[in-house]
Amino acid sequence: MKNAVGRVVPEHLAGYGAVKPFAGAFHTIPAMCRQAPAVKICKPGQSKLVNNLEEVFQQIPVKDGMTLSFHHHFRNGDGVLNMVLATAARLGLKNLTIAVSSVFPVHAPLIEHIKNGVVTALDTNYMSGPVAEAISRGLLDKPVMMRTHGGRARAIECGQLKIDVAFIAAPAADDYGNINGVQGPAACGSLGYAIPDAEYAQYVVAVTDYLCEYPLAPVSISQTRVDYVVKVDSIGDPKGIVSGSTKVTKDPVGLRIAQTAAKVIKAAGLIKEGLSFQTGAGGASLATAHFVGKMMEQAGITASFAMGGITGYLVDMLNRGLLRKITDVQGFDLDAVHSIGNNPNHLEVSAGQYANPFNSGCIVNKLDTVFLGATEIDTDFNVNVTTGSNGLIMGGSGGHSDAAAGAKITLIVANLLRGRLPTVVDKVLTVTTPGETVDVLVTERGVAVNPRRGDLREKLLAAGLSVKDIRELKQEAEKLAGVPEKIKTSDRIVAVVEYRDGTMIDVVRQVLDK
Amino acid sequence: MKNAVGRVVPEHLAGYGAVKPFAGAFHTIPAMCRQAPAVKICKPGQSKLVNNLEEVFQQIPVKDGMTLSFHHHFRNGDGVLNMVLATAARLGLKNLTIAVSSVFPVHAPLIEHIKNGVVTALDTNYMSGPVAEAISRGLLDKPVMMRTHGGRARAIECGQLKIDVAFIAAPAADDYGNINGVQGPAACGSLGYAIPDAEYAQYVVAVTDYLCEYPLAPVSISQTRVDYVVKVDSIGDPKGIVSGSTKVTKDPVGLRIAQTAAKVIKAAGLIKEGLSFQTGAGGASLATAHFVGKMMEQAGITASFAMGGITGYLVDMLNRGLLRKITDVQGFDLDAVHSIGNNPNHLEVSAGQYANPFNSGCIVNKLDTVFLGATEIDTDFNVNVTTGSNGLIMGGSGGHSDAAAGAKITLIVANLLRGRLPTVVDKVLTVTTPGETVDVLVTERGVAVNPRRGDLREKLLAAGLSVKDIRELKQEAEKLAGVPEKIKTSDRIVAVVEYRDGTMIDVVRQVLDK
Repeated sequence: MKNAVGRVVPEHLAGYGAVKPFAGAFHTIPAMCRQAPAVKICKPGQSKLVNNLEEVFQQIPVKDGMTLSFHHHFRNGDGVLNMVLATAARLGLKNLTIAVSSVFPVHAPLIEHIKNGVVTALDTNYMSGPVAEAISRGLLDKPVMMRTHGGRARAIECGQLKIDVAFIAAPAADDYGNINGVQGPAACGSLGYAIPDAEYAQYVVAVTDYLCEYPLAPVSISQTRVDYVVKVDSIGDPKGIVSGSTKVTKDPVGLRIAQTAAKVIKAAGLIKEGLSFQTGAGGASLATAHFVGKMMEQAGITASFAMGGITGYLVDMLNRGLLRKITDVQGFDLDAVHSIGNNPNHLEVSAGQYANPFNSGCIVNKLDTVFLGATEIDTDFNVNVTTGSNGLIMGGSGGHSDAAAGAKITLIVANLLRGRLPTVVDKVLTVTTPGETVDVLVTERGVAVNPRRGDLREKLLAAGLSVKDIRELKQEAEKLAGVPEKIKTSDRIVAVVEYRDGTMIDVVRQVLDK
Repeated sequence: MKNAVGRVVPEHLAGYGAVKPFAGAFHTIPAMCRQAPAVKICKPGQSKLVNNLEEVFQQIPVKDGMTLSFHHHFRNGDGVLNMVLATAARLGLKNLTIAVSSVFPVHAPLIEHIKNGVVTALDTNYMSGPVAEAISRGLLDKPVMMRTHGGRARAIECGQLKIDVAFIAAPAADDYGNINGVQGPAACGSLGYAIPDAEYAQYVVAVTDYLCEYPLAPVSISQTRVDYVVKVDSIGDPKGIVSGSTKVTKDPVGLRIAQTAAKVIKAAGLIKEGLSFQTGAGGASLATAHFVGKMMEQAGITASFAMGGITGYLVDMLNRGLLRKITDVQGFDLDAVHSIGNNPNHLEVSAGQYANPFNSGCIVNKLDTVFLGATEIDTDFNVNVTTGSNGLIMGGSGGHSDAAAGAKITLIVANLLRGRLPTVVDKVLTVTTPGETVDVLVTERGVAVNPRRGDLREKLLAAGLSVKDIRELKQEAEKLAGVPEKIKTSDRIVAVVEYRDGTMIDVVRQVLDK
């Protein structure tokens, strides 16, 4: 069957079940109650401290077939997922589902665990590195579930992703399980993605290398939800948090795109007192924030808040008074880590607060604008940030679809060519974010406005911006780089791309090597 | 049938249902899942601001028979409960259940609402003033449910107290429902008792007189749980927060008792680095904290934390470095309100974190000691803080039973006579806190140790304290004041006293006037 973005999705998929096709960004209405884990008891005098992970596995006990969850605030510096899975393998466990908010190159040992049958299912919002490549080539029998950051929080809160045991990499913890991310040798800042796991898992384990006196302050995850506390030598390398580009681009083309994006935002009337925005961590997105900041300074105005994965650049804007608040689900560098621990206007928010579409209102709903990247964008404005030009998985939505859906004006900032391939195409290989939630594409060769936003098109024209039809931009790209060859895939589905509301927006098929 | 403290409780009670008798402080093990309210949606652009309470009632809509909940952080200054019930009465609603964490004299209009059938059931942890008296005399057909502070959190989290609409008196709120208690003209400090209501109610309404720019910081209750925001002229008078005694007593007998209590704590070996304690707001309890503080200063040690309803006295200890942290579920005076808004070591905690016995561990479990008051204490060390010498309801557990159950050593500090009546009796009129959770009674005429704590008795004797049998103290009291007349009650049950674990520990019967 075809879904609302024209993708053929199966009605039923082995290892997944019955499919609800994507029906439009705000079409699906929840009709369930919240996930309700079993109520527990912990008597006075009972200790939560356990000597090592093996003892935790035995005490719970962790069994074959369970779902273990992890958060990715350490990004490529994470030590906990590998440590826990090594324990699982040592204890002979099989058939585990790993629900981890993102997968990085550091998680390469997962490949062996999959080959050995320790892990047989994966649920994540973003994948890069060897695991992503191996999955793309058919490593796992079951399709990987790829969610958005808000969608994962939704799935957990709505009981669609049921977690048996949440392992929380805890930069600081006390012996009764209060946790924060801002203290200790491996401080990572916000623990936003771990908060839904802690709230709804059947069991919660704090894995820490910095055990503090009770009661810990501040508290991001409360003792009332944590069953075990394990002290280990190291939970990860905070240097690994900084992975990928988190600096303003220096590339002149990227800067030109960013400058144009800022002009679009101004023309749309958003450079006004109290504006709010989100930016990706990519160089062009950050550069857009830079130019928006300049405009704000010139106009003498202040933004009410910036949301995001947070970088030092935004921290600097907060410290200079250009931002009144930062809402932070994840720190992208150590400046962000330092700031959230010290500045009361730099707020930690959970993945649910950030972007869960099924609660009484998430933060992305309050965004005036968001500037996001794209691997591909098609003439319907559908965006792919899941698969690369070779068809292999190299990312995923993360918060891309969430912010796009929430913001009043969603900009895609992208070079017309990516490597030697056009960014604008007829049909993206994988739909990550539906075109109906994307308003403007900004390239170095001009700006295209989604036909749904005729109002905005008029404003951009009035401001003298070079507004083109998106098909025109596609043709220009193809003139420069030719029409790209179609990627050859088999019929086998290696990943399901789930929209934030739980419907299937697309699938990723196994790549056939040429 | 008789329960574990020897009280006759019915097997079934009209307006209540089947009775689970109290079986011991840690005997009841939960066997349920958490309360799971319906999952909701709030789309971008949707506003939560509503013009007035009537519109909120219509939009939800509030219907006959629903349960509306309220928190008591404004104590005798609360304006919201009366305002909401006046709206309910105006709209002709009937048969409402009011779940309010405590009832104060200011809530006297509730009597008319009960007479008119607008309100037909009441669920609370503490009652004083005209409503308590009217209930005691038979105003309500259904027995009032009297819980502990931790028990209320438990009942809400376990789905035993199902809230249809939680009305949160919000000292500061933004237009999307983020709430805190530390800003605005009516700042009340911690919002600890409101947090379970917000987390588990089907609908949540923020009633505020201080509407702030989005996003509010700090956030005590998140936008993700709040459905409506109503701006009103005033939510209450923060001066009413200070009700009852929140100063160290000046009465020489009270001071002597407090000094003895501090000696008991020292003899028990608790004056040690990192101790933790809770104190009631009563003058003798606070005076005990005063003498404990003096001992700490002399010994050059610091307490890890103090829990409580918080007074300026504890804030002063925090500021002087005698306490490293304060965990605060409720401010008892404006010093506490100011401190929690400004001192990062003064932590807001929810009622669930504070004292819910059915989660993965509440704060009272980590208390070394607590000093509490009593209206009566019997020779089995059962304590009554629910009914007064005239048999009328004049209080309730609040956190009394919770802290007693959690702390390693629970002290009752009380004058041997209360007015002209003995405090120590054969059988308390109403069991609020079971004797098995009470370790020591401290009076001006000596100290009695619960026979369960032979270890402690030895230590107190070794320290030269005047340790007596509790029956001896009773006889001394009776010698001074005579044996009190038995209070005459009818068979009719006007209130159920529920222990923190959800079992029935006692009932309150209607008083027959002489």
